[in-house]
Amino acid sequence: MTKRHFDDELIFLRGRILTMGGLCEEMIHEAVKILLARDPSFGDSVARNEERVNDLHIEIDDRCLKMIALNQPAAEDLRLITAAMKINSDLERVADQAVNVAETSAYLLKLPTLKAGHIPRMVDLATGMLKDSLDAFAHKDVDLARSVIQRDDEEDRLKSEVFTELLQIMQTDASTIQRALEIILISRNLERIADHATNIAEDVIFMVLGKDIRHKSGKE
Amino acid sequence: MTKRHFDDELIFLRGRILTMGGLCEEMIHEAVKILLARDPSFGDSVARNEERVNDLHIEIDDRCLKMIALNQPAAEDLRLITAAMKINSDLERVADQAVNVAETSAYLLKLPTLKAGHIPRMVDLATGMLKDSLDAFAHKDVDLARSVIQRDDEEDRLKSEVFTELLQIMQTDASTIQRALEIILISRNLERIADHATNIAEDVIFMVLGKDIRHKSGKE
Repeated sequence: MTKRHFDDELIFLRGRILTMGGLCEEMIHEAVKILLARDPSFGDSVARNEERVNDLHIEIDDRCLKMIALNQPAAEDLRLITAAMKINSDLERVADQAVNVAETSAYLLKLPTLKAGHIPRMVDLATGMLKDSLDAFAHKDVDLARSVIQRDDEEDRLKSEVFTELLQIMQTDASTIQRALEIILISRNLERIADHATNIAEDVIFMVLGKDIRHKSGKE
Repeated sequence: MTKRHFDDELIFLRGRILTMGGLCEEMIHEAVKILLARDPSFGDSVARNEERVNDLHIEIDDRCLKMIALNQPAAEDLRLITAAMKINSDLERVADQAVNVAETSAYLLKLPTLKAGHIPRMVDLATGMLKDSLDAFAHKDVDLARSVIQRDDEEDRLKSEVFTELLQIMQTDASTIQRALEIILISRNLERIADHATNIAEDVIFMVLGKDIRHKSGKE
């Protein structure tokens, strides 16, 4: 493969990752609409998008392996390809979480309504983090990646508030237990999506700087 | 790097992954002992082992990148190194789950006892899956990897039973709600550990056969 051809392949790989990320964002929004708009019809679209994400997951992994084997890249090019492989895994798991949210939301429609509390804020924060982590990847933007990592604490805080609030509701009115439990599980799914966005942001920083910031105190 | 030196490096890499896997197994057992033996002293050891896992996580990633850059491996050697990078990520997340179990268990000791139901069986199944997935990696054993993947459904089934059982207990006696919730969260952590073992088993099959079995119906 010529250098020119390899550079084209890198640009194409980046595009495939961004396509996959866009599908994941869409899946999260649709999954949550089932709950918040009380409209189960979004479930079909979540399922269709999951298939596309799964196809991309296999395609991107295969593409990365071939690029390494045929081009023997080093330094930043190699870090970009291995970052793409890791981001690929994270995105596939984001899609799994969106499917979980969709399934739990569809189940919740069968029960009486219970207020969703901080769930919409958790959704906005998690999808914003995911979007920015992928923009940081696309533009090799370390500052944006750092801002994603900083937002993760806020998502954890919201998750704890959801838990405390729903625990109180359950203890006051036992008829809400099942519904409240399901909403707590959705909040955990959203927190995991934010964790995946944080992983992606850490991979971007390593890709650009060649410096591993994981497991450092204060996350920096 | 000579071919001989590279082969030595591969053997060493495999050893580091197995060391990391052993630490993760230990962490899970210790975390659960806090709950089942009602002994919070195991928390220190979980925390110490997490530090070692985090150090290995960075070391192994770095080692893999250098091996690819310096040796330009192809085919099975390249698949082994990229499998090691993925297994490395999964093991680091297994350790995170063990820390979550340890923290939740320590919190549960402050509350009156509630029977742990299927939790011990979930622990045995998850740690068995993790151990076998790493043995499958060490011995390139596709059959063993397949058996790990097959066991994942049983872990999911146990998780659902824990949920159903505790939901009933909460609905009967509201004073148990908080404790029951925490045990449900532990069951989710254990299920995630089984998922990571399944991911590792899938990576092993791809490493050996060069065939991607993910996202296939019936998982084969």
